[in-house]
Amino acid sequence: MKAVVMREQQLLVDDIPAPVPGLGEVLVKTLACGICGSDLHMFHHCEHVLGNFKRGHIPVDFDARKDVVFGHEYCAEVLDHGPGSDKKIKVGTRVCSLPFVITPSRFDHIGYSNQYPGGYGEQMVLSEQMLIPVPGDLPAEIAALAEPLTVAAHAVNRAQLQGDEVPVVIGCGPIGLAVIAALKSRGIGPIVAADFSPARRALAEKLGADVVVNPAEQSPYQSWLDVAAPPGYEINSPFALFGLGTQPQPCVVFECVGLPGLIQQAIQNAPPRSRIIVVGVCMETDQIEPLIGIGKEANLHFSFGYTGEEFTQTLYALADGKLDGAPMITGRVKLDGVAEAFRALASPEDQAKVMITFD
Amino acid sequence: MKAVVMREQQLLVDDIPAPVPGLGEVLVKTLACGICGSDLHMFHHCEHVLGNFKRGHIPVDFDARKDVVFGHEYCAEVLDHGPGSDKKIKVGTRVCSLPFVITPSRFDHIGYSNQYPGGYGEQMVLSEQMLIPVPGDLPAEIAALAEPLTVAAHAVNRAQLQGDEVPVVIGCGPIGLAVIAALKSRGIGPIVAADFSPARRALAEKLGADVVVNPAEQSPYQSWLDVAAPPGYEINSPFALFGLGTQPQPCVVFECVGLPGLIQQAIQNAPPRSRIIVVGVCMETDQIEPLIGIGKEANLHFSFGYTGEEFTQTLYALADGKLDGAPMITGRVKLDGVAEAFRALASPEDQAKVMITFD
Repeated sequence: MKAVVMREQQLLVDDIPAPVPGLGEVLVKTLACGICGSDLHMFHHCEHVLGNFKRGHIPVDFDARKDVVFGHEYCAEVLDHGPGSDKKIKVGTRVCSLPFVITPSRFDHIGYSNQYPGGYGEQMVLSEQMLIPVPGDLPAEIAALAEPLTVAAHAVNRAQLQGDEVPVVIGCGPIGLAVIAALKSRGIGPIVAADFSPARRALAEKLGADVVVNPAEQSPYQSWLDVAAPPGYEINSPFALFGLGTQPQPCVVFECVGLPGLIQQAIQNAPPRSRIIVVGVCMETDQIEPLIGIGKEANLHFSFGYTGEEFTQTLYALADGKLDGAPMITGRVKLDGVAEAFRALASPEDQAKVMITFD
Repeated sequence: MKAVVMREQQLLVDDIPAPVPGLGEVLVKTLACGICGSDLHMFHHCEHVLGNFKRGHIPVDFDARKDVVFGHEYCAEVLDHGPGSDKKIKVGTRVCSLPFVITPSRFDHIGYSNQYPGGYGEQMVLSEQMLIPVPGDLPAEIAALAEPLTVAAHAVNRAQLQGDEVPVVIGCGPIGLAVIAALKSRGIGPIVAADFSPARRALAEKLGADVVVNPAEQSPYQSWLDVAAPPGYEINSPFALFGLGTQPQPCVVFECVGLPGLIQQAIQNAPPRSRIIVVGVCMETDQIEPLIGIGKEANLHFSFGYTGEEFTQTLYALADGKLDGAPMITGRVKLDGVAEAFRALASPEDQAKVMITFD
């Protein structure tokens, strides 16, 4: 089959053997696959990222000296069943899946594996128990958005929203945009969003952000104050700290950048008792000021992955039209355009989510 | 009046003018006052701590070149009412109070103020609206424990316990001990507690810890595993991270040490989705590994202060016998013994909570 292979620190289109479904697995034909920021990280800093994942006990591991086919944001069509399959999901069915293969002794991540090629190839082998049939006539590229949108849905679920919060989304890359879409679909808002890039800010508006700021010009927490707090409320006053007087709508921050210093920035600038959901993956050691965390009674919730239930809910919300992620897609390429897309994705001005499509 | 005064970086017993109650204030006679770890910090690193508090917008501020009388963990008796008082709390009533004076424009902290001497002196001026009469015949020194026990009650409330948690208390200084007492009074347990000091470990047991470990010999998270997790559960496995299989009782960590590195240690060693309540006040910049936080889906809740409701509940729990903080008290001194008590409190082996008593 044709696939984009990471080999010797390059992305090459090559013909490689199609994977063969094992026990409880199915063979599928890829219909669409998103390019994830994690793929870019992995491509540019592979050993570093794998080392960090190992340190963080994040179950993503492979031998970078061997071929790897990326792609974990996919929609596919069932071609064949492996041995021991219950065949409940028929050949021809369009499916998404959690990109995992789980056995009692092993965890493998489709798209970050030497054994399980991802959606940057024409065919994949998926675990039957991880499949979710695509409802109705949802286009494949929209179904492929379910994965990043579920990352966002999980982050939003981590915030345990009551409905009266005014969220602040820091960083409008694909994950920040997905968080905005998830918040919008749940009627949470007004949504404040911040990004240095004009193109990303325009996308944030398209996805449903109500107040979009350039943090070089205005603090997003000033925007939060403007829409969420009663007159006279001061974020750093003892009255705010002790919860005296008329209270603002609660602030929930989604940190979707993942660079050092961003967590502390949120602790420091957000109002007391904010929930700060850390979705951006900062690979470096970071610094915080616990004393300022204490003086803010900050709540930090690190978010990772999602559950099968969250994935299904997201896919169905897309199908029902309750969730709209379509504006995230800024470009489409075939397999031979992937390497160029990786270059374009280095700049926030050009692309957000690039979708790989197949003939 | 006689008072222990911090003057020119010394603690001196001196005769100073008694404070005069202003509008809505009462004059009280101090009956008992605890020596708080924060007083020690403030004494030994005054400018540093004040600078840090300012940076953290923590409303504690005074001029260290002028006299300060410490003491914010007190029980007192009403002597007189200032002008504009509603006199609902009669002369002779024994009271505790939140150690704050709040006006629409100002926040003052009794015991950390040039204007409001604390319980290291024979008399204090308190804000009438902050008074809580001591119920029944609760001894003054036990009523004086209400303040540190309320700090712990607030920290426990920050954890939003459901009742099935197995808490891990890191550090058994006065605040760790108070957290143990608060957990015990709510029937949460078994309680795991850790401290390097044998004396502190013995106190932890007295206050109700069920499993007490020396972290030099055994990880407290191993103890948590032993009592909270099903056989085969591994803290750092993908199965734990994705919540697959039989789940353990939830882990809630109370970080009561306040030294650099302790927050990261909890993130790294606790099981996935632990709630980590940061009660110890680390004054230094600290380092965390966000990637490990993400791989653990850690939840960090910084805790500061308390509400009036929490103070009243704690005082009544002490009076009802539902909460027992008495074993925290390891020594009693008069005003002329305070300087020596500060020296003794530098070692964890000698003292935990030293109570200042009056004739």
